[in-house]
Formats: sequence, C-alpha cells, structure tokens
Amino acid sequence: MKLISKTPIVILNFKTYLESTGKNALELAKACEKVAKETGVNIAVAPQHIDLYNLSKEVDIPVLAQHIDPITAGGHTGRVLLECAQEAGAVGTLINHSEKRMKLADIGEIVKRSSQAEMVSVVCTNNIETSAAAASLGPNFIAVEPPELIGSGIPVSQAEPEVVTGTVAAVQKINPSVKVLCGAGISTGNDMKAALDLGSEGVLLASGIILAKSPEKALLDLVSKI
Amino acid sequence: MKLISKTPIVILNFKTYLESTGKNALELAKACEKVAKETGVNIAVAPQHIDLYNLSKEVDIPVLAQHIDPITAGGHTGRVLLECAQEAGAVGTLINHSEKRMKLADIGEIVKRSSQAEMVSVVCTNNIETSAAAASLGPNFIAVEPPELIGSGIPVSQAEPEVVTGTVAAVQKINPSVKVLCGAGISTGNDMKAALDLGSEGVLLASGIILAKSPEKALLDLVSKI
Amino acid sequence: MKLISKTPIVILNFKTYLESTGKNALELAKACEKVAKETGVNIAVAPQHIDLYNLSKEVDIPVLAQHIDPITAGGHTGRVLLECAQEAGAVGTLINHSEKRMKLADIGEIVKRSSQAEMVSVVCTNNIETSAAAASLGPNFIAVEPPELIGSGIPVSQAEPEVVTGTVAAVQKINPSVKVLCGAGISTGNDMKAALDLGSEGVLLASGIILAKSPEKALLDLVSKI
Amino acid sequence: MKLISKTPIVILNFKTYLESTGKNALELAKACEKVAKETGVNIAVAPQHIDLYNLSKEVDIPVLAQHIDPITAGGHTGRVLLECAQEAGAVGTLINHSEKRMKLADIGEIVKRSSQAEMVSVVCTNNIETSAAAASLGPNFIAVEPPELIGSGIPVSQAEPEVVTGTVAAVQKINPSVKVLCGAGISTGNDMKAALDLGSEGVLLASGIILAKSPEKALLDLVSKI
Repeated sequence: MKLISKTPIVILNFKTYLESTGKNALELAKACEKVAKETGVNIAVAPQHIDLYNLSKEVDIPVLAQHIDPITAGGHTGRVLLECAQEAGAVGTLINHSEKRMKLADIGEIVKRSSQAEMVSVVCTNNIETSAAAASLGPNFIAVEPPELIGSGIPVSQAEPEVVTGTVAAVQKINPSVKVLCGAGISTGNDMKAALDLGSEGVLLASGIILAKSPEKALLDLVSKI
Repeated sequence: MKLISKTPIVILNFKTYLESTGKNALELAKACEKVAKETGVNIAVAPQHIDLYNLSKEVDIPVLAQHIDPITAGGHTGRVLLECAQEAGAVGTLINHSEKRMKLADIGEIVKRSSQAEMVSVVCTNNIETSAAAASLGPNFIAVEPPELIGSGIPVSQAEPEVVTGTVAAVQKINPSVKVLCGAGISTGNDMKAALDLGSEGVLLASGIILAKSPEKALLDLVSKI
Repeated sequence: MKLISKTPIVILNFKTYLESTGKNALELAKACEKVAKETGVNIAVAPQHIDLYNLSKEVDIPVLAQHIDPITAGGHTGRVLLECAQEAGAVGTLINHSEKRMKLADIGEIVKRSSQAEMVSVVCTNNIETSAAAASLGPNFIAVEPPELIGSGIPVSQAEPEVVTGTVAAVQKINPSVKVLCGAGISTGNDMKAALDLGSEGVLLASGIILAKSPEKALLDLVSKI
Repeated sequence: MKLISKTPIVILNFKTYLESTGKNALELAKACEKVAKETGVNIAVAPQHIDLYNLSKEVDIPVLAQHIDPITAGGHTGRVLLECAQEAGAVGTLINHSEKRMKLADIGEIVKRSSQAEMVSVVCTNNIETSAAAASLGPNFIAVEPPELIGSGIPVSQAEPEVVTGTVAAVQKINPSVKVLCGAGISTGNDMKAALDLGSEGVLLASGIILAKSPEKALLDLVSKI
C-alpha cells in the first residue's frame, strides 16, 4: 500500500542530480524503500518525470511527481499531464517547488485537480505569508522552505525556527486539515527531530541525502530520532 | 491629492489598446479626471508603463502601474522597477492581472515592497480560493475577475454573483482590512451598482470604457447609480 | 537498430492527448512500429516524458523526447535533464515545438548538447526566417510548421507550399547538412507525398494520426505514396 | 535629428540601476547628449520603459526601448507595445538582451515589426552561433555579449576577441547589411578601440559607465580613441 497520509513523513525530492537519475534513481528509491520498511517511517520519493514510471513499478513506497502542468489533455507538447503521471503510478505531486515556481492561479488549479483525482498535493512555499496563502487553496501538505537555506546544509529548524512555528500557526488558523512539512538544509536526525518538535509533520529534502556517501545510512540517521 | 483609499473606487486598466496609448491615453485619463471631479467618485487609471510618467504629470487622479517586476535595482534590462514607477508618479500598482499572472512568491514580494514604499497594491485573482489566498498576503485591494468573463461584456455581478459575495466573505474572514473589487464584463451603471450591492467596494475594468464611443459618457453612466 | 537518420521519416508527436497517454501511448507506439516494419518507412515517436521510459523499452523504433530543458545536472526540480532522457532510451529530441517555444540561446545550447551526446536534434520553427536562423545552430532536422495550420487539418503542403520550398532553399544555403521536415495539418498519403515533392525529407505530425479512428490505418495511408 | 545608423555607435543600456532611474536617468542622458555633441560620436540611450517618454522629450540623441513585447494592440496588461514605445519617441529597441531573453519566433516577429515601423532593431546574442542565427532575421544590429563577461569589468575584446571576429565573419556571410556591436565588460577607450579593431561597429554597455564616479568623464574616455 502506497499510503502517503501517514506522518511523520520524509519526502525525498530527487531533483535532477545524476546521483538520482536512471539506474541511480532506482537504487536510491530502493534504499528509501528499505529504510521505510526497516523503520516503519513513511518515506516518499519524487523522481524526475522520465524516471517516474519505472520507480513506481519497482518500489513499494509512495512516488510523487516533481511537478504537474496546469493543462488538460490535448496539444501541449513537452508538458506534464496529471492523468499521465497518475497512470504511471504517481500518488501525488510536488507543486510550486522553489526551483519550479508557479503562478497563484495555476497552484490553485493543480491543487483542485489533484484532489479530484485523489492525488496528494504538496505545495512548496517560501515564508509564512505564502504558506498562509497556500492554505486557503486546501492542499494536503504545505512544505515551507526558506529559499536561502535550500542546499545550504544549514537546517531551517535551526537557522529560522520561527518560520516553521509561524507557518504551523498560520496554516492551522486558515485550514487545520493542512499538514505542514519543512525543508531546506535538513539532513540529520537532529534536524528532523527539531523539525517535528517545532510542530511540522515531516520534512522535504534532497541533496543532504542524495549526495551523501551512503544515502541509506543518511536516511537511517535522518529518521533515527523520531 | 491623489488618494486612492477612498471607496467606492473605479480603476480603469488601460491595457495596451491603441485607444489608450500615447495621446489617446492622455485624453482618456483627462476624461476620467473630469468625471471624477464632476461626480466625486474616486477614479484611478492604470496606463501602460511608457505612458505612466506623462499621465501622472498631467492628471490629478491616482495613477497606478499595470505591473511591477519582482526585482531590486540593478541589472534587469526590460523589467519594471518599483522605484522607477514611484518616482514617475505611480501611487500604486496592479499585481497579477489575468493577462500578467505572477508566481505566488512574487506576488507576496511585490505586496510587501509596495507596502514598504507606501504604494497601494491591487492583487487580481480569478476565483474565491485564490482571493482568500491573496488576502493572507495583506494587499490593499483584491480584484476578483473570473477569466472567462474578461472582455466578454457579461458582467460578473450578473453571471456569477456568488463569486463576488463568496470572495467578500472569504477575504473578510482572513483579513478584514483588505477591500474587494470586482471586474470582468463590467461597463454600465447597473453593473457597478450590482457589484457594490454584492459587497464589493468598487470595480476594475477596461474595454467597456476604453472602447466605448464616448468613454466620458460611459464613465458617467458607470458611476451614475452609486 | 533505432536509427533516425534514414529519410523519408515520419515523426509522430504524441503531445498530451489521452489517446496517446500511458497504455494508449504504448498501443499507439506499437502501431507505429508495425507500420514501420511492414512498409520499411522510418517512423519515430515522441511520447510524453513520463511515457518515454516504457515506450523505449517496448518498441524497436526511434523514441524522441518532446522537450529537453537547458539545464545541467543538479537542483532543477520538475525539469527535463538530457542525461535522464538518454538513459531512458531517447535517441533524440524535439526542440522549440510551437507549444513549447524556447529562447534562442537555449535552442542553441540544446542543439549543441544533443550533438555532443550523439542525440538527434529536431528544431521546430514557424516560418522561413526562423528556419534559416535555426540552420545556423546546426541541428539534424528543422521541422517548419506554420502555427496557424497546426491541428487545422489543412496541410501546409497545400495551404502554404512556398513555406516548405522557401525553407528548404534557405536552410540549404546556410547549412546543407540540415534536413527539412514539414508539419501542420498533415494527415494523408497525399499530404505526405506533396511534402516530399516540395523538397522536405519527412513530416512531423500529431492529431491527424493520434485522433484517427484507426491510427494504424491512418499511418498506412500516410506512407502509402512515398 | 535622432539618427541611429551612424557608426561607430555607443549604446548605453540604462538597465534598472537607481543611478539610471528617474531624475538620475535624465541627468545621465544629458551627459550622453553632451559627449555626443562635443565629440561627434553617435551615442544612443536605452532607458527603462517608464523613463522613455521623458528622456526622448528632453534629449536630442537616439532613445531606444530596452524591450518590446511580441504583442499587438489589445488586452495585454503590463506588456510593452511597439506603437506605444514609438509614439513616446523610441527610434529603436534592444531585443533579446541577456537579462530578457526571448523566444526565437518572438525575436523574428519583433525584428520584422520594427522594420515595418521604421524602428531600429538591436538583437543581443551570446555567441557566434546565435549571432549567425539572428543575422537570418535581418535586424539592423547584432550585439554579441558573452554572458559570463557582462558586468565583469573584463572586456570581451580582450578576454574573447575570437567571439567578436567570429561573429563579424559569421554575420557578414549570412547578411552583410547587419552591423555587429559588442558588449560585456566594455568601459574604457582602449576597450572600445579594441572592439572596433576587431571589426565591430560599436559597443553596447551599461555598468561601466552608469556606475562610474563621473559618467560624463567615463564616456569621454570611452570614445577618446576612436
């Protein structure tokens, strides 16, 4: 069962690193699956579009799209169709990642269409105000990531804990059914514990695991203090 | 005094019609000024970037930018700098118009920077959910315009009154200091009266006035039932 | 062998139709493969990103990406990495399709990187001038498609034959090693024959085949008069 | 007379520096005008959209737009209409600056429409291949600027002279009526002399003059060795 609703959750964004492309992507997803099974922690992966089909066939953990375009079926060469992602096994999607920012109206549309398709929506945001804004759109998750900390190795839970607590409070006030994740600079068990202690229900991360000497060990450490 | 806070307000978006370009833009702005003075109704204009300087020098009504880019001073050829708009006389700006949709994070940034610069922010939205989202960003105005009605001649106040009342209610709940305008298909005094009756504090409109045989008469009719 | 250099060539762009998504995409690719084998005509397919892996494993005809982003490996969530497309089996890529227009500098970069990776580049253009421009970038193919005819059912070879002959002449003058394809409105054997008679070496097409009652029959007709 | 065809030419791109905004823009343009009159060298300025009207009224040297959007008159809020730029006094426009890259088809359209409107087109490019490509579109000028040198203070004429000579040769071969400028890192008289010696007919520059203690003195130095 590829349930994504169970928290705490770890979502690993594969981005477009060579270390998380093709065969490497499959190997990384297998490591995530192994750690998820061993520890019981919910770990989801968000591979590149082209790797999505293969990974969702090969691993028994939730697979998310990195992005879905605000289009319906038809003449949209080179874009990502929700129905195609879903048929290939995606159970949800990242939306508005800092590296793929979307227009407000398009975020609203993809959240709505994800809900209609029973796919999980994870809207990424950059601060408390935009997190509150996103909460009004009713996604399943909001992942707040101060852009200046992404890929920095400095965990948001340590550098700007008030962004996490402020986001949790703001989102709670607008729409209590939306769960808050945090990202940016997260890589260790201490980071993740701090993130949960601040009121988030999980983390969205990438390079801290993907570029680790042993992603499996890094993942084991990440979930060790939950 | 170019106060924009007084409501009910009419904001005329000049878009890029030839009828509202250059000398025509000046003539149209003069007509707006005349009607504003005669009737006491607050009428603001949003001309093209290139016409902004001249219009703000020549008319004594509020002049808004149609768009401001999420940049700070520096190397940004071809973009619109807030400081440049303000020095040229803009007292505020449209943000995220349906013809110039912006990314959520950028809307948040421009609203914040407008506030810091004491410029009025008018965030355009397309439905109730995105209006509620925009309210969390704290702009001065939210102008809700169902895209399918823009330029249609079918007033939103008649075709989809629930969008206006729903937006007013949703915005009120999130941030009561934000004023709601409505747009799309508005052109007559009846349309404007209906818009106000539904709880909005004014209208954002364009072709209904710009392309009228006599914009001045069309404006007089528009504000005749307030 | 998945050679794409053999002409005349038919490139079927799957776009994002439901009729060419997921299982339907596989079935359609199988039909292309069957017709290619039966007739000896070179038929290539350009499926959605998410379907690319599966199709390239399942069919023995050339598979192209619909688009590749001008990025290198790293933090580029939601984008399409050349290395990922190639590892998944893409032997080439469409570039600058009318539904996914690219910046000039980015077209130049992707053509160059495709060449370095020994992938075939098919640059789409909209008229004679932009075709001549693209020729200077040295792609393998230029596919000229007047935008107003795409999906129209009116073949470019009939409506604007001078665009095809003019493109062939202009490209020949700049870089004789670049092959010209034509698209837009092509669906029948007569259309394809006319396209070849005008000097092109093949066609790029989509809806005329994808939405046909029997794509296989439509393909057989398409290549019947070569 | 605001002729821009006379070479050697200096085009000063005002970008969006505060030093070249509003009153500062006017002062800078006056300095350009003064140096142009004193030295007889053709100096053109490309101010921000919002400053364009005022500058073209106040100075008697050619004023260019920094960018024009590929739109025709109508509903295009926030965009830059060619007719509006021309009525405000622009005699030409930069196209595809490295900070405002455009799609190939849009570059082609703006070059064509500039020509029809008798406005001068200056297409910016990043290397020899894209310069050759742009030449097929028939602009008046091509300004080649290796992106890595823009704002670097390292003149292209010194760091990559082969880019200038290669561009001149490639453009000459495609369309001898197109004049080549060079940019990126240019600020002194030696830089400009080197640029002309390499076969270019002028320079496009920005920060080297705009951010100089005395732009007037910097301009005088720039043109001192022609």
